[in-house]
Amino acid sequence: MRATVMHAAGDVRIENIPDATIVQPTDAVMRVTRACICGSDLWPYRSMQRSETGQRMGHEAIGVVEAVGSEVRRLKRGDLVVMPFAISDGTCVFCHEGLTTACVHLGFFGNAGNDGAQAEAIRIPYADGTLFPLSVREDEALMASLLTLADVMGTGHHAAAVAKVGPGKSVAVVGDGAVGLCGVIAAKRLGAERIILLGRHPDRIALAREFGATDVVSERGAEAVERVRELTGGSGAHSVLECVGLGQSMQTAIEITRPGGAIGRVGVPQDETLPGSQPAFYHNVTVGGGPAPVRAYIRELLPDILEGRIQPGRVFDRVVNLDGVPGGYRDMHDRKALKVMVRL
Amino acid sequence: MRATVMHAAGDVRIENIPDATIVQPTDAVMRVTRACICGSDLWPYRSMQRSETGQRMGHEAIGVVEAVGSEVRRLKRGDLVVMPFAISDGTCVFCHEGLTTACVHLGFFGNAGNDGAQAEAIRIPYADGTLFPLSVREDEALMASLLTLADVMGTGHHAAAVAKVGPGKSVAVVGDGAVGLCGVIAAKRLGAERIILLGRHPDRIALAREFGATDVVSERGAEAVERVRELTGGSGAHSVLECVGLGQSMQTAIEITRPGGAIGRVGVPQDETLPGSQPAFYHNVTVGGGPAPVRAYIRELLPDILEGRIQPGRVFDRVVNLDGVPGGYRDMHDRKALKVMVRL
Repeated sequence: MRATVMHAAGDVRIENIPDATIVQPTDAVMRVTRACICGSDLWPYRSMQRSETGQRMGHEAIGVVEAVGSEVRRLKRGDLVVMPFAISDGTCVFCHEGLTTACVHLGFFGNAGNDGAQAEAIRIPYADGTLFPLSVREDEALMASLLTLADVMGTGHHAAAVAKVGPGKSVAVVGDGAVGLCGVIAAKRLGAERIILLGRHPDRIALAREFGATDVVSERGAEAVERVRELTGGSGAHSVLECVGLGQSMQTAIEITRPGGAIGRVGVPQDETLPGSQPAFYHNVTVGGGPAPVRAYIRELLPDILEGRIQPGRVFDRVVNLDGVPGGYRDMHDRKALKVMVRL
Repeated sequence: MRATVMHAAGDVRIENIPDATIVQPTDAVMRVTRACICGSDLWPYRSMQRSETGQRMGHEAIGVVEAVGSEVRRLKRGDLVVMPFAISDGTCVFCHEGLTTACVHLGFFGNAGNDGAQAEAIRIPYADGTLFPLSVREDEALMASLLTLADVMGTGHHAAAVAKVGPGKSVAVVGDGAVGLCGVIAAKRLGAERIILLGRHPDRIALAREFGATDVVSERGAEAVERVRELTGGSGAHSVLECVGLGQSMQTAIEITRPGGAIGRVGVPQDETLPGSQPAFYHNVTVGGGPAPVRAYIRELLPDILEGRIQPGRVFDRVVNLDGVPGGYRDMHDRKALKVMVRL
């Protein structure tokens, strides 16, 4: 079968590799029908050391179950499923608490030697816990939005949930990538009154406004902080969604949070330390977040997609086939594309 | 009148200064009957640059109202009051929300040029909002515990509240100072099942056990992390109270928090950055806290003190008069005293 393998920064190839097969009795094999490229895939795309074996890439997909191991109970061949970015067994204490990304059998697809979903097929460990079966038919119009349940929509929702977004609250979203835009959708969905997007790309800003952003701040650093404070009565936003992962964006996030407010961070942190320890402390700002338990959020978000109330699939602005994946990375890196869907 | 003035690290003096007087119509003058020395006073005691004017010290007190300005409505001469460490007007939006330490008129006593309470008397700005009148008589047996409502008991409670302590939860308290010990009291009071104190001083450990600590970890660094994990089924504590303020203690706090858990930090941070950005992220650990809104917590904590259910006043292990204050600093710095009460 064919799959995406990254060998070093900037070196992404489509290669022939052995077919995905059942290895453990709790495995399934999923034929990928749609995958995508994530903003977080761009971190290794920019920095990965050359590797002998390479890393299979891709951690968001929708597909069809091709085969199941002898201990898989809830899935059968032919099921249409969402594949969240994390492996979770569905039975451990953390899965029961809804924090599937702390599963005792946790693994991240397309990372640390795990199989990737930018491929014709993929082996799914702990398939009963990991995959979410969809009871809908493969409806072309819905597929893009359903695909976002594998990561970006659930991740934007996590940022909003951790930042305690609620009715009447003011919200600031740091970052206008696909996760930031889904954060806008999530904030709107949870009843936020004012939603301020911090971003600079006109096309993304336009989409954010359609998703519910009430204000846009395109300044950076101290000027951005000043603008957000102006928009929030001088005090900052109750809830801030950090959707970048850099020190500077976190510093900004802390400075625009209202005293007593909360930050939900979902941008994969690129630094060992968090800035702003003292301003966060003196303002009693809470910083939380991490890998989103998107598997646990699907049940809550799915009806809104199926009934058309939210359309996170609009973050995809390019569709490629498997051969187009290396070009897709390049375009996302060059910011020519917001988010690339891979259609198989 | 006589008051404590710090001139440089290690240089604390009792001096004659002009009497406290009403300056603004919202002021009161409070005669101090009891004050104390705080762990946070030791930071300048160790590091303060020599100052021409010096800094008046002390931010926790109980006293009697001596005079009130023309706009003070809720207090009168003779009232017995608790003086929390922060000035708060009691009327702004943050005060109404219960975050008195984000008051738009916020100031910290004994800091940044503000008057201090290790003195015969002190001017209290925004007296109606700042002071909490006690309807009890000056009962000697209760005074020590009531004095802790000015800071350490409310601060320990804040750490526990931010760390989401609740019935059945496992709690770890990092630091065996007076705030850490009050954190143990707060955790017990809020129903924690297991309360692990990280500390090394035998007398403080003994007191912590009386306050409700179920386990003590005296190791440091990686060994401490290992021990806490052993005590919590391998995963760490649901709630961690960081009561020190150093990078190493915060690193430990992050590493001993259960995935999805929360840290309440109340140790005044000594560094610009927070360590552990990545482990906190990958474990979805929330870090919150800051200066405790102790004024807002008094109403909740007071009945438990008056009815004897908690005895936070037991953290005082030395009583001095005003002339004994410099020696009190020295003894706390040398760890010969846990917390010093100043009796006037």
